[in-house]
Amino acid sequence: MKNVAQSGGPNGVRSREQCAELDALDRLAPARARFKLPPGVIYLDGNSLGAMPLVTASRVQDALERQWGDRLIASWNDAGWVDLPQRLGAKIAALVGAADDEVVVADSTSVNLFKLLSGALAQRPGRQVILSERGNFPTDLYIAQGLIRQLGGQHELRLVERQDLAAGLNSEVAVLLATQVDYRSGSRLDMASLTGAAHAAGALTIWDLAHSAGAFRVELNAAQADFAVGCGYKYLNGGPGAPAFLFVARRHQQDFTQPLSGWFGHEQPFRFETDYRPAPGIARALCGSPPILSMVALEAGVDTMREALAGDSMAALESKAAALTTCFIDLVAPLAEEYQLELVTPRAPAARGNQVSYALGDGEHAYALVQALIARGVVGDFRTPNIARFGFAPLYLRFVDVWDAVGHLRTVLANREWDNARFRTRQSVT
Amino acid sequence: MKNVAQSGGPNGVRSREQCAELDALDRLAPARARFKLPPGVIYLDGNSLGAMPLVTASRVQDALERQWGDRLIASWNDAGWVDLPQRLGAKIAALVGAADDEVVVADSTSVNLFKLLSGALAQRPGRQVILSERGNFPTDLYIAQGLIRQLGGQHELRLVERQDLAAGLNSEVAVLLATQVDYRSGSRLDMASLTGAAHAAGALTIWDLAHSAGAFRVELNAAQADFAVGCGYKYLNGGPGAPAFLFVARRHQQDFTQPLSGWFGHEQPFRFETDYRPAPGIARALCGSPPILSMVALEAGVDTMREALAGDSMAALESKAAALTTCFIDLVAPLAEEYQLELVTPRAPAARGNQVSYALGDGEHAYALVQALIARGVVGDFRTPNIARFGFAPLYLRFVDVWDAVGHLRTVLANREWDNARFRTRQSVT
Repeated sequence: MKNVAQSGGPNGVRSREQCAELDALDRLAPARARFKLPPGVIYLDGNSLGAMPLVTASRVQDALERQWGDRLIASWNDAGWVDLPQRLGAKIAALVGAADDEVVVADSTSVNLFKLLSGALAQRPGRQVILSERGNFPTDLYIAQGLIRQLGGQHELRLVERQDLAAGLNSEVAVLLATQVDYRSGSRLDMASLTGAAHAAGALTIWDLAHSAGAFRVELNAAQADFAVGCGYKYLNGGPGAPAFLFVARRHQQDFTQPLSGWFGHEQPFRFETDYRPAPGIARALCGSPPILSMVALEAGVDTMREALAGDSMAALESKAAALTTCFIDLVAPLAEEYQLELVTPRAPAARGNQVSYALGDGEHAYALVQALIARGVVGDFRTPNIARFGFAPLYLRFVDVWDAVGHLRTVLANREWDNARFRTRQSVT
Repeated sequence: MKNVAQSGGPNGVRSREQCAELDALDRLAPARARFKLPPGVIYLDGNSLGAMPLVTASRVQDALERQWGDRLIASWNDAGWVDLPQRLGAKIAALVGAADDEVVVADSTSVNLFKLLSGALAQRPGRQVILSERGNFPTDLYIAQGLIRQLGGQHELRLVERQDLAAGLNSEVAVLLATQVDYRSGSRLDMASLTGAAHAAGALTIWDLAHSAGAFRVELNAAQADFAVGCGYKYLNGGPGAPAFLFVARRHQQDFTQPLSGWFGHEQPFRFETDYRPAPGIARALCGSPPILSMVALEAGVDTMREALAGDSMAALESKAAALTTCFIDLVAPLAEEYQLELVTPRAPAARGNQVSYALGDGEHAYALVQALIARGVVGDFRTPNIARFGFAPLYLRFVDVWDAVGHLRTVLANREWDNARFRTRQSVT
């Protein structure tokens, strides 16, 4: 694996046997056995909804039958429900380069972003601009728009192209709101350099780690990041709609305020005081009662990753992901040329996340291609306007899966199976 | 049961046998078999965390193993995850006197209250006052305080005593924010008359139904209520921290705006547009991705109630709850007099929710009393400053449970068992 990662990918892969050899050398290969993966499916959509860890079913069942069913209200303390947001946050912190007391799990990514944007703007009262990119994941933009409307409209959401974010930083910018990995192209921003540029301009940063956390090495503190949000249901394998997490750098916590000041963020929630007093640390970012069953499932997902990594670090995970995506790109290259699939994902591993995306003609063709692959058990997804997207979750995917997926792709293209794919209406969730 | 309810309670109960006869006559008695109730426990804390329906475990297991594990991303459509907030909202609507398209399930009560308060203030631009009561459940007040701070401080949270809410309504009041059943005393406000008074003053109403929904008959539309929030984990038995619901009367939906404008509230979330456009109906009150596992559990709780009621209505549920609480109050009455337990819950059934509360000396005594009862398997809870609180969930409690609970209370008081109860630190969640 080491050579593979250092060379940027197994450029020499020419056979399924070579892929099997790479799997045999892969120290993370045993992690696959920790997941429920339906037979006949090559799941390249873990960037949308991660696969289910086997341990999740028994953990949730225990939370249901024993903690809730038998112990009832007592489990808020005895089973540690009451501080699960912090306890689980500390576990996630270790995966994203943060300290234990800088991350909590709560609410959804959108709600958490609202808190952080509110808090960040309050810390830059003289500045009016939220700088983001036009192609950012829409809910991030919608939340910024909603907040600006509520604040009376004196702020501005300024949208530039992704490559122009650094150039857009100036003394008007209060906050840079950036998603590290683009959900369409998979391109990855350099968190450290962009954060440095933001700070040089006097701006704060909010990083959306939706496609980063659990995917590769994230170093929030090394990058001097100010705030971040992240998703529990993608590479953390927390289950559908799993609660999200948020990060507030310790140096900002004392001044951090946010308007969703519910009782779980109170310094003494069970004193039932009339006036809100924010908890001293990261807990002030909490709001209402946490959805325990969904959080228990997320904890199972995070524990699965931590146990699978064992002595290995997130760097090992990143190496494998880079090798998988490089292998896919290399094997698809001749097909891409022949069938006009335009690779929109950067070729340099450090410049992309764990997904590979191709633009293909108009939307109908890309959509039909994805459907034809799904009919063969190769599950990727479609994104407007014309993107076929394939995600590579390094904990449960093998190099032979990459080989087999490309084989199916070759057949679909050669047989023009997409012409037969039904254009049924399908919504899908990022 | 009919006579019992009409007379306001079984005043004549003098024996456990009479209680058993009332249970035998109770048309809702079979509902108890639908719940997991640990042996040896009389659970009088369903107003804090409802008991687990038996069907919940298999429903959640199906969502895990089959929907998520086997079907993966496809379940967003095939298993109906994507419109679960609306589908489950419609089921709850039927329990609170609302139309199908007026309720959605989302987020927590606190987050939903923030949306509704924001939306209500926007509809009353000339008015500055949020009127509420000093003893309201704290998170409701904290959310109002957070919103007011965010809006720049030109609004005012005006707190009056509960009995002075109607008198406090005037032309300054934008919104009346009222919790129908007080979490301490259990007193119930008359929703129709207070809503009428608010409207006469030109104000809007937001009702917090935390201790109402699934407890007794709530008629939001008959009362002309404008907005409401409610809790999934109390009388709806949705599990710890279950998602909450919110109600926006149809007449307000078109003008309703809220700042947590996440993608699930967008008219076309999967078109991934750059600009937010609110969905036409109640869906605009949604924000981020819903926590599916917790929602599946809540749906199991709501379905359990709907199936248990069968041909009966919420009025039947209310009658039983009134009979249970009346029975408890009557049986405790001589003890209350002897041991200075002050009944703080109204005696008229229509003026209270499904709980009975006693004030007792200082906080330490009330706390110790509750602990001594818990040690005997009678689970109520303590609320500051000196309240012992007992909730009566009519779906799974029997009249013999009331009798037995009072028996334990008598023993605890006679033996002064509270002196022995350990004053261990205990947080508990409403």
